[in-house]
Amino acid sequence: MIAEIISVGTELLLGNILNSNAKYLSEECSELGLSVFFQTVVGDNEKRLEETIKRALQGSDIVFLTGGLGPTQDDLTKEVVAKVVDKPLVKDEYTEKKLIDFFNKRKVKMASNNLKQALIPEGSLVLENNNGTAPGLIVNEDNKILVLLPGPPKEMVPLFEEQVKPYIRKISSETIASKTLRVVGIGESTVEELLTELINGQSNPTIAPYAKDGEVHLRLTAKALSEKEAYELIEPTEKAVYDILGDSIYTNEDKTLEEVVLDLLLEKEYTLSIVESCTGGLLSGRIINCSGISTVYKEGQITYSNEAKVNLGVKEETINQYGAVSGHTAKEMVEAMAKVSGSEVSLSVTGIAGPTGGTEDKPVGLVYIGCYINGKTTVKEYNFVGSRERIRNNSVIAAINLLRLELLNN
Amino acid sequence: MIAEIISVGTELLLGNILNSNAKYLSEECSELGLSVFFQTVVGDNEKRLEETIKRALQGSDIVFLTGGLGPTQDDLTKEVVAKVVDKPLVKDEYTEKKLIDFFNKRKVKMASNNLKQALIPEGSLVLENNNGTAPGLIVNEDNKILVLLPGPPKEMVPLFEEQVKPYIRKISSETIASKTLRVVGIGESTVEELLTELINGQSNPTIAPYAKDGEVHLRLTAKALSEKEAYELIEPTEKAVYDILGDSIYTNEDKTLEEVVLDLLLEKEYTLSIVESCTGGLLSGRIINCSGISTVYKEGQITYSNEAKVNLGVKEETINQYGAVSGHTAKEMVEAMAKVSGSEVSLSVTGIAGPTGGTEDKPVGLVYIGCYINGKTTVKEYNFVGSRERIRNNSVIAAINLLRLELLNN
Repeated sequence: MIAEIISVGTELLLGNILNSNAKYLSEECSELGLSVFFQTVVGDNEKRLEETIKRALQGSDIVFLTGGLGPTQDDLTKEVVAKVVDKPLVKDEYTEKKLIDFFNKRKVKMASNNLKQALIPEGSLVLENNNGTAPGLIVNEDNKILVLLPGPPKEMVPLFEEQVKPYIRKISSETIASKTLRVVGIGESTVEELLTELINGQSNPTIAPYAKDGEVHLRLTAKALSEKEAYELIEPTEKAVYDILGDSIYTNEDKTLEEVVLDLLLEKEYTLSIVESCTGGLLSGRIINCSGISTVYKEGQITYSNEAKVNLGVKEETINQYGAVSGHTAKEMVEAMAKVSGSEVSLSVTGIAGPTGGTEDKPVGLVYIGCYINGKTTVKEYNFVGSRERIRNNSVIAAINLLRLELLNN
Repeated sequence: MIAEIISVGTELLLGNILNSNAKYLSEECSELGLSVFFQTVVGDNEKRLEETIKRALQGSDIVFLTGGLGPTQDDLTKEVVAKVVDKPLVKDEYTEKKLIDFFNKRKVKMASNNLKQALIPEGSLVLENNNGTAPGLIVNEDNKILVLLPGPPKEMVPLFEEQVKPYIRKISSETIASKTLRVVGIGESTVEELLTELINGQSNPTIAPYAKDGEVHLRLTAKALSEKEAYELIEPTEKAVYDILGDSIYTNEDKTLEEVVLDLLLEKEYTLSIVESCTGGLLSGRIINCSGISTVYKEGQITYSNEAKVNLGVKEETINQYGAVSGHTAKEMVEAMAKVSGSEVSLSVTGIAGPTGGTEDKPVGLVYIGCYINGKTTVKEYNFVGSRERIRNNSVIAAINLLRLELLNN
C-alpha cells in the first residue's frame, strides 16, 4: 500500500518547530510495510489544505494527517476532510460527554468552542485520545483511508501505537514483525560494509541500518502470514548478523546502552564511581539518567583542572611527565577514584575536546578512557573528530561501551 | 514573495532522519520576509521529483531544494531541475578543479562519478561549498528562482547563511533586520501574556516568541529600505520588551545562557565549583561545553548517594533531620563544595528527578538549588513537572540562571 503524510500547521511553515511527527509516521509506515512517496506540510489554510488532501488521495491508498483537530478557528483538518469526502459533520455523543467530564473534573469552565472537538465526519471511526481533548479519526472513502491524528506528539504517538497500528495490521493481509539490533563502537559505513553480502542477499527479512547518536541500529523486518512466522523468518538472519558483529551488538531489546550496562552492574552487584575531565559531568549525567541507578552509582568527580586531579590522588609528576591528557593520568585518575569511593568499578575520561588546546603530538580529539574493575585497570586511547560537543559525546559513548565490554569479559 | 521548500531524499521518507533542513529554511524564509506555503519531501525518484518541482514553480516565486546533489546514481536533483528548466548540463571548470584538488590533497583516488558534481544547468550561478564536495546552485527561470542546496546541514547552513541570504536580500527591494532577545525563567505562555498588548500593537517590527529548550526566544523583525533604518525601527520595541521582562532577558546577542554566565564570572575573576545530586553531572557538563571555561571551572562532584554527600562535608544529622532533598542539605552541599575547592562561587543541586522516589511531602520534581558567592549562600526551591529527563534539564537551566541573577545582583 502507498501512504502519504500530511502535517497541518502554520507553525511548521514558520520553522517554529521540527516536524518530528512526519519522521515518526514515516518510520512506522516503513515498519508496517507501507511505502511513503510524499510528506507534505501545509498551513492552516482551507484552500491549500483541500488541494493537498485531494492530491494525496489520488496517489495513495492511505493518507495520514496530523494537526488541526483542536478547538480553535484555525483548526480545519476535520472540516476540510468532511468536505473532500462529502460527509456532514455530526456530533459524537461519547466524545462530547468526555469533554464535558474533562472540564468538570478540572473545575474549569469549558469555552464553548471546545465542543467543536466532538464533531466527526459522519460514519468515521473515533480513536479515543487519552492524552488530550481532540480524538483521532479514521475516515474511509472509496477504498481509501484517511487517518486524522492530533498534532502534539505526546498525543499522536500513543494514539498511533495503540489504535492505528493494530487497525492497519488488521486490514493488511500480511503481518510484519521487526527486531532491532543496536550496535556501538563501529561506524555506519563499516557496519554496512561488513554486512554488504547479507544485506544484498536478503529480501525477507530486510536489514536496514540507521545511524543514531553515535550508534547504529539494524532493523530486521519480515513479512509473513502470522507474527510467529515473521519472527521465525528473522531468527537465522539475526544469528548471521550476530556472527559477524559479535559483541559490538549491545542488545536486541528496547534498551539504551546505559541501561544494558546498569543491568550488568546490578547482576554482578558492583558499585560504580566516575571521574571526568573533558566530558565534564556528561558521562555521569548520562548514566544517572537510568531510573534505578541509585543502588549502583556511588559518586563522581569532575577534575577539570590539574589541581583537582592532584587533589583526587593523581601524582603531580605523572601530570608533569606525561601530561593531563595521557594514558598514565587516565590510569591514576580511575584508580584514585575507585580508592576514594570504595566502588568495585570506576571509569575515568581525560582528553582534548577543543576547539583550542591541541598540539601536533596531542591533537584535538585525543581522549584516554580508564576502566577499573576489582583491581584490574584497562586504559584505551581514542582519536575523535568533529566539534567540541561531538568529541565530548563520543567520549561518553566510548566510556560506557568500554565498561560494557570489560564487564562482559571479566 | 512566495517560497516553497522541497527536501529530496528517500531516507526522509523512511523516517531515518529528522527534516531539520526544512525547519531551518522555513525559519530563515520567515526572517527574510518570504511566505512559505508548502514544505514537501520527495524520494530519490525522477518522475515524482519532476512533478513536485513543476508544481512548486507554479505556485511560488522561489523554490528551495535540499539534497540529491551528491555523486551517486541516486542523486537526481540537478538532472531533474535541468530537465524542468530545459537547459543542458555543462561542466563548471572551477568546481571540477576544486574536486580534483580535494582528492589529490587527501591522497585518495577519486571515483569518476565524483565529477558529476561539477556539472551544472547552463547559466546557473555556482555557490561554492567549503564544507563538502557538491556545490549549491541558483537557477533562474522565467522570473522564478530555484535554489539547489546540499543535503547535509553542516554544508547547507553555512552555504545558505553566507551566499543565499545576501542574494535574496539583494533581489528583494526591502531589507529585513532582526534581533533576538533570549528569555529564561518564565514560560512561553507567561511571556506571551505579559507582551500581549505589545505583540498585538506591532506590525513593524513584529515580535515572535519561540519556545526553545527551556527558554523563550523573542525575535523582533523589522522591514525597511536600509538595514540601519530597520534596526532603528527595532530599537523602541526592544526597549519596551526590556521594560516589561527585565533581567529575565539574559541576552540580546547570539550567546547561550552558559556563555553569558561565563562572561560574568570572567569579568569578576571568580572561579566556580559545582556539586550535583539529581542532575548527576549534567550541570557541570553543560557549563563545561563553553570553550574557554578552563580558567574559571575548578572542580565538580557528583554526590548522588548520601554517603558521598557526607564525605564532601554535609552533616549526617542534616540529612537525617531534613532529608537529602532539602534546602538545608543544598546549603551545606554548596558551602562544603566552595570550601573544598577554594572557589569564590559554587552551585549545588539536590532533588527528586523521578519517576520513583517521590512522597506526598516531597513529590517528584521538587528540587533545591544552592548558590554560594563569596560567603553568601542563597537557596531556592523549585517544583518541576514532567519526565525524569525534563526535570533534570530544567534543574540545570534553573541553576545556571540562579547563578546569573545572583552575579548580576551581588
